[in-house]
Amino acid sequence: MTVPLLNCDMGESFGNYSLGLDSEVMPHVDCANIACGFHASDPHVMRRTVRLAVEHGVRVGAHPGYPDLMGFGRRSMNCPPAEVEDMVLYQVGALAGICEAEGTKLQYIKPHGALYNDMARDAELLRAVMRAVRSYDAALPLMLMATAEPEPSRRLAREMGVAIWFETFADRAYDAQGHLVSRREPGAVHHDQEIIVAQAVRLARGEPLQANDGTSLHLPCDTLCVHGDNPESVAAVRAIRDAFQTLDRV
Amino acid sequence: MTVPLLNCDMGESFGNYSLGLDSEVMPHVDCANIACGFHASDPHVMRRTVRLAVEHGVRVGAHPGYPDLMGFGRRSMNCPPAEVEDMVLYQVGALAGICEAEGTKLQYIKPHGALYNDMARDAELLRAVMRAVRSYDAALPLMLMATAEPEPSRRLAREMGVAIWFETFADRAYDAQGHLVSRREPGAVHHDQEIIVAQAVRLARGEPLQANDGTSLHLPCDTLCVHGDNPESVAAVRAIRDAFQTLDRV
Amino acid sequence: MTVPLLNCDMGESFGNYSLGLDSEVMPHVDCANIACGFHASDPHVMRRTVRLAVEHGVRVGAHPGYPDLMGFGRRSMNCPPAEVEDMVLYQVGALAGICEAEGTKLQYIKPHGALYNDMARDAELLRAVMRAVRSYDAALPLMLMATAEPEPSRRLAREMGVAIWFETFADRAYDAQGHLVSRREPGAVHHDQEIIVAQAVRLARGEPLQANDGTSLHLPCDTLCVHGDNPESVAAVRAIRDAFQTLDRV
Amino acid sequence: MTVPLLNCDMGESFGNYSLGLDSEVMPHVDCANIACGFHASDPHVMRRTVRLAVEHGVRVGAHPGYPDLMGFGRRSMNCPPAEVEDMVLYQVGALAGICEAEGTKLQYIKPHGALYNDMARDAELLRAVMRAVRSYDAALPLMLMATAEPEPSRRLAREMGVAIWFETFADRAYDAQGHLVSRREPGAVHHDQEIIVAQAVRLARGEPLQANDGTSLHLPCDTLCVHGDNPESVAAVRAIRDAFQTLDRV
Repeated sequence: MTVPLLNCDMGESFGNYSLGLDSEVMPHVDCANIACGFHASDPHVMRRTVRLAVEHGVRVGAHPGYPDLMGFGRRSMNCPPAEVEDMVLYQVGALAGICEAEGTKLQYIKPHGALYNDMARDAELLRAVMRAVRSYDAALPLMLMATAEPEPSRRLAREMGVAIWFETFADRAYDAQGHLVSRREPGAVHHDQEIIVAQAVRLARGEPLQANDGTSLHLPCDTLCVHGDNPESVAAVRAIRDAFQTLDRV
Repeated sequence: MTVPLLNCDMGESFGNYSLGLDSEVMPHVDCANIACGFHASDPHVMRRTVRLAVEHGVRVGAHPGYPDLMGFGRRSMNCPPAEVEDMVLYQVGALAGICEAEGTKLQYIKPHGALYNDMARDAELLRAVMRAVRSYDAALPLMLMATAEPEPSRRLAREMGVAIWFETFADRAYDAQGHLVSRREPGAVHHDQEIIVAQAVRLARGEPLQANDGTSLHLPCDTLCVHGDNPESVAAVRAIRDAFQTLDRV
Repeated sequence: MTVPLLNCDMGESFGNYSLGLDSEVMPHVDCANIACGFHASDPHVMRRTVRLAVEHGVRVGAHPGYPDLMGFGRRSMNCPPAEVEDMVLYQVGALAGICEAEGTKLQYIKPHGALYNDMARDAELLRAVMRAVRSYDAALPLMLMATAEPEPSRRLAREMGVAIWFETFADRAYDAQGHLVSRREPGAVHHDQEIIVAQAVRLARGEPLQANDGTSLHLPCDTLCVHGDNPESVAAVRAIRDAFQTLDRV
Repeated sequence: MTVPLLNCDMGESFGNYSLGLDSEVMPHVDCANIACGFHASDPHVMRRTVRLAVEHGVRVGAHPGYPDLMGFGRRSMNCPPAEVEDMVLYQVGALAGICEAEGTKLQYIKPHGALYNDMARDAELLRAVMRAVRSYDAALPLMLMATAEPEPSRRLAREMGVAIWFETFADRAYDAQGHLVSRREPGAVHHDQEIIVAQAVRLARGEPLQANDGTSLHLPCDTLCVHGDNPESVAAVRAIRDAFQTLDRV
């Protein structure tokens, strides 16, 4: 068993606006998904966040999004795939430039928000993002949402020549296909820390979850998404980290 | 004598907006200063422009500017030097990411517009830009406006550990200090192609120009700025190129 | 018969970027749809364009779009209707402020690009735009794409308490439902000036068009969209204007 | 004696970013300076803020700034006065449009940040802003920083045909000319609530302050700027309000 990497969105502040408890959560994660200025962040925030990641030995990942600061990259935009490809390259390069100045290297790419979700639904868009990753550096893993049927994504990744990491969530309910239950439905988000930690441990051990229709759901899990938005979510990250250290020892 | 490199601003289109005769002028220059999305350009335009440069064997340079699309980077902004440093890194990295995808490398950096001019007046800002260049890749030359007194800039560049290229203009009048005469003054811009070519040749040969007060002015000239805005400026570039080929043969 | 008003998108330049032959086409139209800074234009361009409209006695209309300058408002964005409502109010007010300074008044509202198209497909979005118009000034007509079945839109407009103007196109082919044939299909756009003028005249006279499946199509036509992008489209506007003056006399 | 109006910057949130305790401070002020989308805010935030002001019977003022969201409008930008004039008109109109939808009217204009400061130093810029105000609605007062020599501003306002309100600060030290002491100097900002209230009361009574060189300073005070950034500043606003109610009764 390989313990999944804990990844967390970071560097989402912008100019005079602060967002997220980056300093509090950074010591407890493995991977910092750093916003690249299209949906959040700016060059100065990116620099500060890369430096913080380096101080804590956390891997830096690019977190590119749609060019929509007002909507925080959460609004789907009907962009031609070839333009999305170039937007991803631009943002990845921008963060890599800042990494260079801080003596570190990008280690993976995780698209943000609506782009991440659109990729999961639109194979043309996913191919475009994969082309961007491959042409920038084919060794950088691309994070994808885990589903109950990971084979098509694995096949596409092999065909395109990119590495992928499947991502799961410990604080979200899943349906039988392995899709996240919509936040508009009751029970979609777990708030109880014990439930969150238990789901994280099951995912880490490769044990099945119970989907929202009661069926058993197996998800591949290379990395687990955690949150640094507020003190409760930071506490949950620490609890998951503690539980994973016990796992390590087994 | 080393013939000065011809550099030209390129990739200034944006979304639905077209600017510049990039395809017409690219075959005749040595260096393409490609806008990086802050004052002009977007990821898709940058990609297309890098590809065009590669096709013509032209060196790609980053042309970072202030974050001011509405003002085309021509309005001075009172940004803290540390923030400018990070803005330069961001833009340089973004273009480098696109170069990577096109199988080429950045070869130099030339700040744009008001940032370029502010650097020439404000040593703190110039140091900030130099820190950005050095921390990104100390081997990339930074273009600076040539003046009659280049020694202070040379000394600062040595101290900061960066390489510099002095840039001159063939179509602009100079004052006795080697500063460009303001466009608001009569005679500031040469429109006659013969005068432009003659000034280019004098600069290339290391011969003095006549400043606007009649005195003799010697300017260092590693590179000459040319323009691709309209058919007349493209014709001037071809004429300078022809004149330089004659120089080469001598 | 009321001769349809000729409306044309204007004021689409932005900062250093020029777009459209506004000065050439303004003398020949009735209504200037002026971009409001979200998908194109800026305050200075808007002022200049309003002034030009006033000089030619042309009615000023607000042309609000999605907040997407890079995509020129042509990319559908999945914005909540309540946010779109406020975006429309903001842009309409901004242009009205500039009209105030030029001693004129807004006379209608025509949403732009993807917003215009999304409204035609999504009743919630259309209601949101209608709420914006009604709460700003219920007397301002809202332009809507004409279709073969205008009754549902008329009913909704009455229910919402707003006035509407149906818009048609002289240079586009229609399908049997009265939707524009996609630009990706052959024959979608008419380039021949005689065909364009003939279609304009049929629309003005209330005569049916031939849809792309050969059936007869009747469209309501309060206003006809014309273009000022290039010399050919301006020539077509003049030809339509000439043809309409003959109509007037009948 | 007329008790000065308490004005406070509001509506500075943007998209997913929250800023300021608007709900907490709104009940205690007279005037809400609402950001207009250039340096902060967005149409949805503006609408919500106008509605909040209306609920509390607070006057709505436009708070236009430079087009610089990343710098929060605090970076001076070298914009031509004629462009600033149009930027002010645009932002004022945009907020007025939203006021219209909420059944209220704009009541004054207070430029923000670097624009506010630049106006105080640059008469051409001040004239441009005054032209914008006059051409939009000459009855809307324009807030200006009070100084020890208000006559030149009063004269210019009369000449330009606009009304002005002089603004003072209760939590800032002044120099002998009536300029705010730079925040970089010690003692520039008062943090002690008693000192803040005492300065507010002196300003309200028309009594002189002690400048930072010990001399006596008289400032005109139509309105007093207060802050809603954090619980301490909100508490100070309530204390000033309480002190002013006592004044009223005298």
